[in-house]
Amino acid sequence: MLIGGIEAGGTKFVCAVGDESGNILDKVTFPTEDPVNTLGEAKQFFNNYNIQALGVGSFGPVDLNKKSKTFGRILNTPKLEWKQYRLLDQLKLDYNIPITLDTDVNAAALGEFKYGAAKNAASVLYITVGTGIGAGFVKDGQTYIGKNHPEMGHIFIQQRKDDNFEGNCPYHGTCLEGLASGPAIEKRFGKKGDLLGTDHVAWEMTADYLAQAIINYLLILSPEKVIIGGGVMKQEQLYPLIRKKVMALSNTYMQLENLDEMIVAPTLNDEQGIKGAIALALLE
Amino acid sequence: MLIGGIEAGGTKFVCAVGDESGNILDKVTFPTEDPVNTLGEAKQFFNNYNIQALGVGSFGPVDLNKKSKTFGRILNTPKLEWKQYRLLDQLKLDYNIPITLDTDVNAAALGEFKYGAAKNAASVLYITVGTGIGAGFVKDGQTYIGKNHPEMGHIFIQQRKDDNFEGNCPYHGTCLEGLASGPAIEKRFGKKGDLLGTDHVAWEMTADYLAQAIINYLLILSPEKVIIGGGVMKQEQLYPLIRKKVMALSNTYMQLENLDEMIVAPTLNDEQGIKGAIALALLE
Repeated sequence: MLIGGIEAGGTKFVCAVGDESGNILDKVTFPTEDPVNTLGEAKQFFNNYNIQALGVGSFGPVDLNKKSKTFGRILNTPKLEWKQYRLLDQLKLDYNIPITLDTDVNAAALGEFKYGAAKNAASVLYITVGTGIGAGFVKDGQTYIGKNHPEMGHIFIQQRKDDNFEGNCPYHGTCLEGLASGPAIEKRFGKKGDLLGTDHVAWEMTADYLAQAIINYLLILSPEKVIIGGGVMKQEQLYPLIRKKVMALSNTYMQLENLDEMIVAPTLNDEQGIKGAIALALLE
Repeated sequence: MLIGGIEAGGTKFVCAVGDESGNILDKVTFPTEDPVNTLGEAKQFFNNYNIQALGVGSFGPVDLNKKSKTFGRILNTPKLEWKQYRLLDQLKLDYNIPITLDTDVNAAALGEFKYGAAKNAASVLYITVGTGIGAGFVKDGQTYIGKNHPEMGHIFIQQRKDDNFEGNCPYHGTCLEGLASGPAIEKRFGKKGDLLGTDHVAWEMTADYLAQAIINYLLILSPEKVIIGGGVMKQEQLYPLIRKKVMALSNTYMQLENLDEMIVAPTLNDEQGIKGAIALALLE
């Protein structure tokens, strides 16, 4: 069976055709423009294949509350052409096959759960740290959606006393995303993270904030595995720093063992999102 | 069918016999002593009834990971006689009927979900604010357990700049419980909350911390309903303060409506725990 997947990101779309085993047979990537052009380009690609189902991991916020009148719509986004766009309705019109819509981060979590670093775990939290911060959660083989999808990147944590950055979240100032996203690091230290040395204080500070967030996620969701991906995590020195801080902050309260195996990088080489999107179409 | 329920608290045990509709036919309360005496007293009570199943909402931490070697045990607790106590194994020996063990807060969440303030909700978070802070979560009719049960009361939030209290959590200092529990309020202000006026700054500050925590829970779990109970919440002025702060902190980021109906007090008059314990035995 051929299955289609769309990783619908805010800056680029990835479309792929794959199978039930996580193999990708063909793939295309193009920039996200307005909905008509972007979905048109996706349709052109899929026209070459007889796909039987489609999974979509979308940027957000998107309404995933099936009881809502606006189910399947993109909600309030700074990308004005997509604001209130009826994404799911349009996809149904375009393809007329079963479609599963979820968040980009839930798709990535599902990808790593089915084929990657969390293959043998009962539950996995996938955190992405880049332009923004978000997280998806898979438990019992299903992606987690509450009343609507979580937005875990915006939680409150403790700002350090040696950090007087005002934060750059337009809603919450110094929430996690406001303190630890790529743009937050750049704004606080005056240059892009890539240009800071690997022993710059930025990394110890960012690790501290991410570790606090991970403690909060562990205390609330109790996942078996935590995977951290995204552009900022290309700074691989962050992983040992984060593990050390998680251990110190928990302070024996949680029974944490083998953090080297519990808190890890994704293993699907940036294909977790698109493989997860295809896997979404296979969920029951 | 007669069903037994035990609300196994750190200071008192409540045992009751009830039915499938949430009616309580008989109930007894006694102080929590060592396991032999306390479970013996429970057994004496239940000997009068032919119960077919037993639900137990226990203080913690308790091992609820079915794959764990210590499943069903009380873990590290300051109550030394209960430390590493094989609670579930002993109850199975005592009763020889199906037993469902969960946390006290999950039981309370389930009680309010089945019979109380969350009767028509798809998901409910039940927060208790008292000597400690904890929360239970029910979604799709099931109590939420991850790798182990959550301990949501210990999350990190932002301490206010006008609050230099060192916190009283022995593990995390200024985590939520360290800042907003009953003992934290007493230690910071020098007297019990009951003796502070209803317009004392303690309540505005406590509401702030609880509101931050609720924002974090909403962003991570996205529950439909939030119920806040426990001794500290007998200060009813907290409810409107908390709602106001949740709205302000979200700052239009979340689509929050009708907070008067979304963030509420329990309605089962302190029977949510024991009614929930009975309901645990009816879960599939």
